[in-house]
Amino acid sequence: MPAYRTLAANDAVEYARRHAGLENPATLVSAEEVGDGNLNLVFKILDAAGISRIIVKQALPYVRCVGESWPLTLDRARIEAETLLEHSRFCPQHTVKIVHHDAAMAVMIQEDLSDHHIWRRELIKGVHYPQASRQLGEYLAQTLFHTSDFFQHPHEKKSAVVRFTNPEMCQITEDLFFSDPYRIHERNAYDAALETDAASLRLDSELKRKVAALKHRFLTKAEALLHGDIHSGSVFVAEGRLKAIDAEFGYYGPIGFDIGTAIGNLLLNYCGLPGLTGLRAAAAAREQRLTDIRELWQAFCEGFLALAAQKTRDESLAEPGYASSFLREVWQDAVGYCGTELIRRVVGLAHVADLDSISNAAMRLQCQRSAIELGRMLILAAGRIDDIGALTARIRQYS
Amino acid sequence: MPAYRTLAANDAVEYARRHAGLENPATLVSAEEVGDGNLNLVFKILDAAGISRIIVKQALPYVRCVGESWPLTLDRARIEAETLLEHSRFCPQHTVKIVHHDAAMAVMIQEDLSDHHIWRRELIKGVHYPQASRQLGEYLAQTLFHTSDFFQHPHEKKSAVVRFTNPEMCQITEDLFFSDPYRIHERNAYDAALETDAASLRLDSELKRKVAALKHRFLTKAEALLHGDIHSGSVFVAEGRLKAIDAEFGYYGPIGFDIGTAIGNLLLNYCGLPGLTGLRAAAAAREQRLTDIRELWQAFCEGFLALAAQKTRDESLAEPGYASSFLREVWQDAVGYCGTELIRRVVGLAHVADLDSISNAAMRLQCQRSAIELGRMLILAAGRIDDIGALTARIRQYS
Repeated sequence: MPAYRTLAANDAVEYARRHAGLENPATLVSAEEVGDGNLNLVFKILDAAGISRIIVKQALPYVRCVGESWPLTLDRARIEAETLLEHSRFCPQHTVKIVHHDAAMAVMIQEDLSDHHIWRRELIKGVHYPQASRQLGEYLAQTLFHTSDFFQHPHEKKSAVVRFTNPEMCQITEDLFFSDPYRIHERNAYDAALETDAASLRLDSELKRKVAALKHRFLTKAEALLHGDIHSGSVFVAEGRLKAIDAEFGYYGPIGFDIGTAIGNLLLNYCGLPGLTGLRAAAAAREQRLTDIRELWQAFCEGFLALAAQKTRDESLAEPGYASSFLREVWQDAVGYCGTELIRRVVGLAHVADLDSISNAAMRLQCQRSAIELGRMLILAAGRIDDIGALTARIRQYS
Repeated sequence: MPAYRTLAANDAVEYARRHAGLENPATLVSAEEVGDGNLNLVFKILDAAGISRIIVKQALPYVRCVGESWPLTLDRARIEAETLLEHSRFCPQHTVKIVHHDAAMAVMIQEDLSDHHIWRRELIKGVHYPQASRQLGEYLAQTLFHTSDFFQHPHEKKSAVVRFTNPEMCQITEDLFFSDPYRIHERNAYDAALETDAASLRLDSELKRKVAALKHRFLTKAEALLHGDIHSGSVFVAEGRLKAIDAEFGYYGPIGFDIGTAIGNLLLNYCGLPGLTGLRAAAAAREQRLTDIRELWQAFCEGFLALAAQKTRDESLAEPGYASSFLREVWQDAVGYCGTELIRRVVGLAHVADLDSISNAAMRLQCQRSAIELGRMLILAAGRIDDIGALTARIRQYS
């Protein structure tokens, strides 16, 4: 295996020619670096007509948006590729296809999705994909069921837990979701006008105990191979289609974390809508977001329960009624994790365009405050929000 | 490293001479095999006066009580030694001292505890060690706190989870605690007169859902490096002293499992007492067992909370009040696991002398039935038994 070196554009073309498995590799002639994330180089590999044919993605040994002062393991590239391959086994229709990967080079080659769009951008623009929320629910049901103890043999699952041990990436989540927003930290970034709101988080001991419990479960509960970062920017959509990408945070964690992240990003959009569009359009779009959330959760639940009824291998977990009672716990976790996602996207390091792209400053602050308050309410009340109907009712109360 | 071979008595002497680190190894002259467990060879290594100086313990590649038809990983010897060494770092006073271990030979050398007695035998004989329950609670507090996310750095903890991944031994627990007692299985062993009682377990769907949840938490909740088998037969006592031994089931699991196993074995003794002693003596001894259980739990709680207040390294988990709320979850887990221990020791493969040694058959059955019914109640009501006082009240109701 070659040692690690960073790919330049021409290297990426050469790499794709050799490893992409295309019939006519010589048609690949140039590369365009499109990585807009924080962690990686991403090249579109183009043919002579300028059409992107395949994607080469390489992990950098540091956090790109911060620089070489924040080093980060290259092993995340292996974990990302292996997570996506594992998820593809169970949900190929909604997982980006990995054609090749190389742990030493921290590179993977994946299908080109240029005919898709990042879901977050579409949500911000107000373009509706009527199947997307259900498809994301289906992705979560398939991937999380099949990598859980319902389906995996305990030996297979334990060795998978070892293979997907991902300490450095998990620490980013541990810090950014659960620690930083509730303390003074240089990584936090928010408008000075939000200082009172941020300070109120740091002073809310009941809130911090609930967040500690969520963090503790993130640290201990190895329920399934999570995507680990399934926000609306990790999801590509096209008409009738949806693909999850960017799984470098993959590890065995609490199922509710993936659900809460997915729902949380729809709620971040909900919070931003009054600033992203006119008030009347916002009201309708907000109702649509609540519908999206309900569809996502229902698709997940129905999918998971159908799989549990048909395919549970563990004789104890197959007891009729157990899967439903387990999903009630997942739901409560999900509501809490959703709340932490809302808060950390306003006061923490990594923000979302659903809020930050609002041009009117006063409106932006109002939307950001509503995200903080909604997040706080969800964390505090998670144990009393029994189902999706109760969640919707609570959200309407708060906004 | 030498390859694995089973030690004969003279090999064990030679091994001890070479590796025990004694000042005068030549004084070791003979060995007595005393293994009465199910899994290992255990040699006392004697001097010329016939005094045991040191213990050599070797894992066999199969379950000893069943035979070579049930093979079992030798890696358990490494895990046992490393678990005990880890526990010794934090609670040397109550962990057997490991002098040497060798993974390839699946051997360890440990201190001789001939001046101690197995706690279970003493409980059966009615010999009371007034400090034992508190000492066991202290052992559990020290070992479980220091190997939890309260104290371990997340990177260190994740690599420890990998190192203590123990699939074959965990599967024994998964099967014997949570599956077999609730299904027809050839490993189960109970008096034919208990058939109705055993059948009622298999038909109790609510009970089986609760047991499924306990099994699922055993499979997923990596809270701390458990002893994994801390029943009263894994505990040596002497006046004012207590030592835990036999940690081959060590792995990162739910803290409540160790607590529930420890309490469960005191309750098994409680259930057996009317058959082990006269009725009047039994009533007093039962009160003592309830006191023991309270002392064990309180010592654990007070120890854990004191450590949490002084030594928690995770800033989020250090939030005042969080450790207490976490211990409420541990308590509910412990009550449930305690219930599974009571049941599996009556209808499953591995029994306890507290019940099986009762010579009067009718009395033995009555005591066994009371263990089943108490176990069932604890599993079903775990979520509503809020504290040690409520537990004691419930137990008194049931017996």
